[in-house]
Amino acid sequence: MKQIPFDALRSYCETVLQSCSVPADDAATVTDCLLYANLSGVDSHGIIRLPHYVTRLTNGSITAQPVIRYDRPRPSIMTVDGGDGLGHAITARAVQEAMPVCREQGSVTIVIGNSSHFGMAGYYLRDITAAGFVGMVTTHTDVRIVPSGARKPFAGTNPIAYGFPANGEPLVLDFATTSVSFGKIALARTEGRAIPPDWGVDVNGEPTTDPNALVGMHAIAGHKGAGLAMVIDLFCSMFTAMPYGPHITLMYEELDKPRKLGHFITMWDVGALVPIDALRARVSDYIDELHALPRTDADKPVLHPGEPEALRRAERTRDGIPLEPGLIGELTALGERLGVDTALFA
Amino acid sequence: MKQIPFDALRSYCETVLQSCSVPADDAATVTDCLLYANLSGVDSHGIIRLPHYVTRLTNGSITAQPVIRYDRPRPSIMTVDGGDGLGHAITARAVQEAMPVCREQGSVTIVIGNSSHFGMAGYYLRDITAAGFVGMVTTHTDVRIVPSGARKPFAGTNPIAYGFPANGEPLVLDFATTSVSFGKIALARTEGRAIPPDWGVDVNGEPTTDPNALVGMHAIAGHKGAGLAMVIDLFCSMFTAMPYGPHITLMYEELDKPRKLGHFITMWDVGALVPIDALRARVSDYIDELHALPRTDADKPVLHPGEPEALRRAERTRDGIPLEPGLIGELTALGERLGVDTALFA
Repeated sequence: MKQIPFDALRSYCETVLQSCSVPADDAATVTDCLLYANLSGVDSHGIIRLPHYVTRLTNGSITAQPVIRYDRPRPSIMTVDGGDGLGHAITARAVQEAMPVCREQGSVTIVIGNSSHFGMAGYYLRDITAAGFVGMVTTHTDVRIVPSGARKPFAGTNPIAYGFPANGEPLVLDFATTSVSFGKIALARTEGRAIPPDWGVDVNGEPTTDPNALVGMHAIAGHKGAGLAMVIDLFCSMFTAMPYGPHITLMYEELDKPRKLGHFITMWDVGALVPIDALRARVSDYIDELHALPRTDADKPVLHPGEPEALRRAERTRDGIPLEPGLIGELTALGERLGVDTALFA
Repeated sequence: MKQIPFDALRSYCETVLQSCSVPADDAATVTDCLLYANLSGVDSHGIIRLPHYVTRLTNGSITAQPVIRYDRPRPSIMTVDGGDGLGHAITARAVQEAMPVCREQGSVTIVIGNSSHFGMAGYYLRDITAAGFVGMVTTHTDVRIVPSGARKPFAGTNPIAYGFPANGEPLVLDFATTSVSFGKIALARTEGRAIPPDWGVDVNGEPTTDPNALVGMHAIAGHKGAGLAMVIDLFCSMFTAMPYGPHITLMYEELDKPRKLGHFITMWDVGALVPIDALRARVSDYIDELHALPRTDADKPVLHPGEPEALRRAERTRDGIPLEPGLIGELTALGERLGVDTALFA
């Protein structure tokens, strides 16, 4: 592992995206989202995805300069047509656009269509909670989850994230509905590592340790998690008229087809009901009580959702972002191909 | 098991509640909610709870004729002060009150405080989906879930339910964030049955098969489920200024204290975005595709969330509701004490 300083990696990533005709502000947003994942220790949703985005930007299945259209068919629903652009830029901008609506209406739902992979769902809750809002963020993916009783996948790893403002770091829960995130499989593929046999099944429905042979995965909590993955898929496809489950363009296998993903976000202005300072203080009290629980291991406090990631961010902001040699090689080759300075990886 | 005809059980339950000064329309709503659970096969949230409600109605910790107050601090947020009444009646009425708001605003969030146990969360999605809305319904409970790394429970079995309209029965996912619903433990207590050792732990944090010794339970999916239980608790307590987790009145142990529960419901008028008939048809297509998946057992189709319950409702509406002897004895004694006809149980 090599520690890459945050600022150098940010500059590299922004320059790569700009060299693919992504406008500077969008490049900055996408970079911020990817590196927020790396800082948080969620490397599966970090800069490891950059070469993939470059492939799609280059072949046009992601539009570098999309025409984004906003509409508000009802006072508390905002629709966004992302024009097949980068999901991160579309979503982060939509959240900003929706904030005054949330303040005015008390809550707003943002229904995004014609989008693409938007990175780590929890990222968007940083801005949402900083504004004093409570948020729920979901997206769907191409199919991975095999419902129990079936022999083929039907729902994606469909993640859902929630955030509440607190004093200091917000309480943010962000999880995939598979027992592991697909990003961890992508990481194992990049790193050439075997995976545990309980992560998923091959084309015959048999357990596999080969990340490249894996086609189906297990849901968390059996039918509950599989049901949640389906519900998330419906939120992301039914409001937006985007494809669902088996009809979603495969992220890595159908590289020339636009993803046509939907995202579904709801924000609530809790300050409409409770003074926001009191709310932040009360969520912090909640966290303090959690920390004070009797422990199975005296040295290990019980952490709140989002706390391990926040601790990791403090550490990596200070020490740099660790990247493994295979990924460094890939990013170096990418930079050289695009004429972007790669001295940071040397 | 004895099969009790639906209509006879409904009449009994309504009469019991009315004999506790519950107005006829509220008695009908609470009964409908309880028996909907029984019909659905979710017996843990059915008429088994009636003696408990009677205890609380009698001692005043649930108010039979509450003063319910509605407010709308922002266009898409409705607050409801339930006046410590029966949660089912408060919630079902709030959903009806909020429907025109949802139609007008595109979505509405209902924030309910000063309420009590509201039964099966999925019940409310019957009306929500029948109106052509998509819904999310949550409530919190007194603590049961022991977060990993802790030795004491901190979050309730906190359920969450979602519903989408379809042609025919809606797609409804309703699950507790514990690996089993606490209602199943209550049922085991009533029936005097042992429970599997992986359902929970005793006061020392050790696995137990005695439902009466159980004080802590496991979350679904480890930290993901425990996190979701906490997030649901925050939704139900932070918007409403109701107590959370360890501060919630114990349902069965603190019988003379009002529950002070919160419920958090959001409804979306998907018809604002997609013609509602097209939406229903598309959700039904989704279900058809799920049914058509290759199966591990050729005779067992993969069912959609809510489908096992819908099949059970058809069966029990026809055949009656099976009640076990211990519960029949309890309901008979209750009826005799309140002067309500118990011939249906003979």
